[in-house]
Amino acid sequence: MLKPLGDRLVLEQVESEEKTAGGIVLPDSAQEKPQEGRVVAVGSGALKDNGERVTPEVSEGDIVVYSKFAGTEVKYDGKEYLIVRESDILAVVQ
Amino acid sequence: MLKPLGDRLVLEQVESEEKTAGGIVLPDSAQEKPQEGRVVAVGSGALKDNGERVTPEVSEGDIVVYSKFAGTEVKYDGKEYLIVRESDILAVVQ
Amino acid sequence: MLKPLGDRLVLEQVESEEKTAGGIVLPDSAQEKPQEGRVVAVGSGALKDNGERVTPEVSEGDIVVYSKFAGTEVKYDGKEYLIVRESDILAVVQ
Amino acid sequence: MLKPLGDRLVLEQVESEEKTAGGIVLPDSAQEKPQEGRVVAVGSGALKDNGERVTPEVSEGDIVVYSKFAGTEVKYDGKEYLIVRESDILAVVQ
Amino acid sequence: MLKPLGDRLVLEQVESEEKTAGGIVLPDSAQEKPQEGRVVAVGSGALKDNGERVTPEVSEGDIVVYSKFAGTEVKYDGKEYLIVRESDILAVVQ
Amino acid sequence: MLKPLGDRLVLEQVESEEKTAGGIVLPDSAQEKPQEGRVVAVGSGALKDNGERVTPEVSEGDIVVYSKFAGTEVKYDGKEYLIVRESDILAVVQ
Amino acid sequence: MLKPLGDRLVLEQVESEEKTAGGIVLPDSAQEKPQEGRVVAVGSGALKDNGERVTPEVSEGDIVVYSKFAGTEVKYDGKEYLIVRESDILAVVQ
Repeated sequence: MLKPLGDRLVLEQVESEEKTAGGIVLPDSAQEKPQEGRVVAVGSGALKDNGERVTPEVSEGDIVVYSKFAGTEVKYDGKEYLIVRESDILAVVQ
Repeated sequence: MLKPLGDRLVLEQVESEEKTAGGIVLPDSAQEKPQEGRVVAVGSGALKDNGERVTPEVSEGDIVVYSKFAGTEVKYDGKEYLIVRESDILAVVQ
Repeated sequence: MLKPLGDRLVLEQVESEEKTAGGIVLPDSAQEKPQEGRVVAVGSGALKDNGERVTPEVSEGDIVVYSKFAGTEVKYDGKEYLIVRESDILAVVQ
Repeated sequence: MLKPLGDRLVLEQVESEEKTAGGIVLPDSAQEKPQEGRVVAVGSGALKDNGERVTPEVSEGDIVVYSKFAGTEVKYDGKEYLIVRESDILAVVQ
Repeated sequence: MLKPLGDRLVLEQVESEEKTAGGIVLPDSAQEKPQEGRVVAVGSGALKDNGERVTPEVSEGDIVVYSKFAGTEVKYDGKEYLIVRESDILAVVQ
Repeated sequence: MLKPLGDRLVLEQVESEEKTAGGIVLPDSAQEKPQEGRVVAVGSGALKDNGERVTPEVSEGDIVVYSKFAGTEVKYDGKEYLIVRESDILAVVQ
Repeated sequence: MLKPLGDRLVLEQVESEEKTAGGIVLPDSAQEKPQEGRVVAVGSGALKDNGERVTPEVSEGDIVVYSKFAGTEVKYDGKEYLIVRESDILAVVQ
């Protein structure tokens, strides 16, 4: 399993079936193209000045919209994941 | 529904009828063209150093003027939205 | 009415009559050309680290000198306004 | 009168007579050419994190050396002034 | 032995045998290519404003995924090591 | 006399006689060429967040090594001085 | 003697004999080439927000690995030294 550090999250691609139901369709021309993913792992949170950590606003299982050029792709155990910072998450789909 | 994170807001376009009444007409030549939108969702607010969040100055339903190149366009459930940071909001129309 | 957010101000142009009396004449060649305006609305102030807001140094009705390339022009109810940050205000004319 | 905001100062040119007595002669080739001026108005001081203001180190009447490309020239009531930030002041002539 | 300073870590390459078991396969085309390494030494942690140090999130022996262009290669006692900052570590493999 | 502001210092050139005794010889090719000077005036110190000032580490009379491209040359009462920030001082010669 | 200011250190080159015993061999091609030096003087430490100084992690006599392009070369009393910031020190050799 991949445990992200700090304010990072591990996302997996949301499959097309889910996208169709209440899904997000993204315009091709947007400069910063948002995309959809499901959160599979959440880091311990960004570090505050006093040494405590910020509780992340997203949880495992959340479907999130993120900025396209954010993050690093990683292939682990045969599956592809994206590691992004929480600040690259625009919104949670509820 | 789209729940924006942190200091982000979800805006929808204001229709022309509303624009005419007390509306804002924006010059085409301005380098940073402001635009009008209605707030449909407000994030939990920017994070302060002490881990608390700043109460946003805008509320759902507010008509706001924002900088044109701010934000990311998202299409959700067939409608177009704009996700912006509160700092990209110039003024609230009252 | 336009209510500016945070450390922003809404300014309107000062008419020439007022400029003549104790007015400011600005050189054309200056790299950063200052200009004169009257404050018509003041935001709630910049946010401090502790979540409080800085009391703005200018008030409604003040005649101020601001940097030319600052701010965003907005046309509202048929009148032109300029929305600037308080940090773009160089001085108050007293 | 011009009342500068925050950490800004209003300076007027020092006349040549004063320059001759214990005056500063500035090399033409210096990349950042310092210049001499007399302080005619002092702002309320830079804002600290706790919302208080820093007491300026210069006072009205001080002769100061400032960096040449600092500030904005303003003409007011027929006289030319320079509005600079206190951080652009290199030294006070005593 | 190399003792890294502050928020730095010393990593050694993970051998291919380990990579095969539950290993990470990294795409060649990624702009920021993540890589795998084993932590052999951990610094005292980044410095907080109050002068204390942040407890690192990784420990000696951890297998970590890091950004490729991070860090400095050092050869010591005939072995190659990589000295990286903890912020360059994307995730820990568990 | 020149009284430097904040974290600034006024330096004068050290004469060659002094340089010879325990002197510093500086390579010509260095990108950032350090140089030697004697401190003739010390500012009140850099401002801390709490509004107090940092006590400078150098005193009047100290011989210091500073980075060449730091500072501003000023000619005052017929003598040349250099006004630098304390952070441009690399070391004190003892 | 050279007394470095703030978070600076004075280093001298480590001679080849020492390098051979448990030495560090550095690749020529590395973008940021680390190098070895012996600490001969330590500054009073970086300044914290509260005006105290951070206790340096290295001591006189330590052999350290530093980034090649860091620091300023100084020749003093016929010997060459390098003045670097502590943040340019990657690791201590133990």
